[in-house]
Amino acid sequence: MQNESLLMMPGPVPMPERVRFAMARQAMNHRGAEFGQVVEETTTMLKEIFCTKNDLLTITGSGTAGMEAAISNFCQGKKIACLVNGKFGDRLYQVSQRYGNPMSLASDWGTPLPLEALEQALEEGAEVVTLVHNETSAAILNPAEEIGRLAQKHGALFIMDGITSIGADEVYPDKWGVDVAITGSQKCLAAPAGLAALSVSQKAWDAQCENPPFYFDLPAYKKSAAKNQTPFTPAVPLYLALREACAIALEEGMEARIARHRMMAQAVRTAADVWGLSLFAQPDALHSYSNTATAICYPEGITDDAIRGKVKNLGIEVSGGQDHIKGKIFRIGTMGATGAPEILAVLAMVQGAFKAAGYPLKGDGVSAACEVLIA
Amino acid sequence: MQNESLLMMPGPVPMPERVRFAMARQAMNHRGAEFGQVVEETTTMLKEIFCTKNDLLTITGSGTAGMEAAISNFCQGKKIACLVNGKFGDRLYQVSQRYGNPMSLASDWGTPLPLEALEQALEEGAEVVTLVHNETSAAILNPAEEIGRLAQKHGALFIMDGITSIGADEVYPDKWGVDVAITGSQKCLAAPAGLAALSVSQKAWDAQCENPPFYFDLPAYKKSAAKNQTPFTPAVPLYLALREACAIALEEGMEARIARHRMMAQAVRTAADVWGLSLFAQPDALHSYSNTATAICYPEGITDDAIRGKVKNLGIEVSGGQDHIKGKIFRIGTMGATGAPEILAVLAMVQGAFKAAGYPLKGDGVSAACEVLIA
Repeated sequence: MQNESLLMMPGPVPMPERVRFAMARQAMNHRGAEFGQVVEETTTMLKEIFCTKNDLLTITGSGTAGMEAAISNFCQGKKIACLVNGKFGDRLYQVSQRYGNPMSLASDWGTPLPLEALEQALEEGAEVVTLVHNETSAAILNPAEEIGRLAQKHGALFIMDGITSIGADEVYPDKWGVDVAITGSQKCLAAPAGLAALSVSQKAWDAQCENPPFYFDLPAYKKSAAKNQTPFTPAVPLYLALREACAIALEEGMEARIARHRMMAQAVRTAADVWGLSLFAQPDALHSYSNTATAICYPEGITDDAIRGKVKNLGIEVSGGQDHIKGKIFRIGTMGATGAPEILAVLAMVQGAFKAAGYPLKGDGVSAACEVLIA
Repeated sequence: MQNESLLMMPGPVPMPERVRFAMARQAMNHRGAEFGQVVEETTTMLKEIFCTKNDLLTITGSGTAGMEAAISNFCQGKKIACLVNGKFGDRLYQVSQRYGNPMSLASDWGTPLPLEALEQALEEGAEVVTLVHNETSAAILNPAEEIGRLAQKHGALFIMDGITSIGADEVYPDKWGVDVAITGSQKCLAAPAGLAALSVSQKAWDAQCENPPFYFDLPAYKKSAAKNQTPFTPAVPLYLALREACAIALEEGMEARIARHRMMAQAVRTAADVWGLSLFAQPDALHSYSNTATAICYPEGITDDAIRGKVKNLGIEVSGGQDHIKGKIFRIGTMGATGAPEILAVLAMVQGAFKAAGYPLKGDGVSAACEVLIA
């Protein structure tokens, strides 16, 4: 039995050795020149990965901390249109409830967002739009560009959670009019969890609110960032790891990296198709399948334990469904320091688990996926 | 020239190799059993180090995040008496300004706190007392027990920042009536920065406020802690490091650990005395010198650069004065994975820097410190 499971989940994800061992360095003074260089290099690389010229700030905290920093600094007391087609869309709504006047523009998880309702809300004076770009709970990629166009047309701020897209899929905050884009270190960047990064537009700064939480006071972060510092003690090892992770991403090249993620997700979807299993997400002309997570529906009579439990026992962790779809789907992440070997291992294991459960899959999804990966 | 400076500051501090390399482990599922065990073991050990039977919660964030969690959950709208005799006492006042109705009960940095003013404030209805137990900006140890007695007598909540005392000096939150005690990972525990830990009494829970920041919602942390989890994605490597750091502290034994810190600080104070230099802190019968940091005043005509700059060039970092006492003092930290070799190295280097600057020190502080350490 191996000690360390292979994580094929939509985060946390396997980290390259270079990233992991960067953390082992002896403590350094976070007010000194060496750490300043770490911040400077990491910030510069993150801007390239985010595809933005906006300010780029980092916070020691999870992705949720990044969400709250965005909402508490720029949306207090405002009318907020929260687009929701999964768990994390709803989290942005929940955070918004503490600060503003949010409405939940919701569709069923994994189905297209109600864009007509958004347009109406904007016409009726919504001042902020929140979106989860890639909703991993349902494995759907939402149309950020289209939504950005609507927000801009009505002069609304656009807050985008890019936690599971930035670093693995196309994001263009500046072109799309994203005023705050947020990511977390432990997803597409394949670094450890614990750092949130935000890009902030001038339009967002112009809407700065009084009295955000002290720890999330983004003007203080901006002031410190000008000196390549952070206002509060940073988790230095996580910055060392993130710097390495960003360097690895840019060594691969963002174009190649995005193509790799698309191919990995395509391989998983191809396997599901050949198996005769349904995908959970229901994209349309504007919405797509996620390229960093794939949600596959269990057929009648197959339990989560028979598939996900079996796979876990053999050393790979995939994710189950969350909240009301618990037990109804399983989700395979395709992000992080993973490629063909890991994809084929998890698919072969899933295929074997269905066979062991006596379920007649339609075809050999593993071979079909391999064809995609080899192509 | 060595690459990694020795940090002899009041945090961050040198970390043992076991702590540093614990972080290099491959990513694990933070909702799985293995991480649950990490949380459980770390929490149990932290309770022993905190000397508390209260709930013990951990947050991915700096010590300031821990302060804000305490203030935002338990002090909203309340009359808060903030005791201030240094930079961090003032930070608790600043955080309190965002949530309650604080008054700053201040004395000059490093001088005894105005306890009569506190008693009066409590008589006039102050509902919360905030204290920095060990104020590193001025290197003074404040009388937490006495202040806890006053708070209890008037039924006030007592919030204590123990960020630079817990793990290296005596703390008895339960005996002293501390309702929330806070520490950070990168100080006396000699782990990397990025985790805050809080002990929370039933009296604090009974005063729970509505709508704290989403990321600092302590009831959510408590609910997750019951399952050995955290409500938001935790910085797993920092937990692995903190578990190791707690284990090392308990292997040493808290009594021996506290004695070692006292001896190290005593050695530094002895050197200053033999040198004929003044200490910055002005303790009285209730207040003491800090055992984790010592602040030494520069004599007339000696610049920060001549001492601290020279020492830094030779490979050791000590801290300067902050804010209005910048350039007037230097501070030597005595915490973390340090002992006699590091103490003697920094003292010898400081002594040499004074000689190089042409300042006639009264005596050989290094030899005197060595006598303390050898005793």
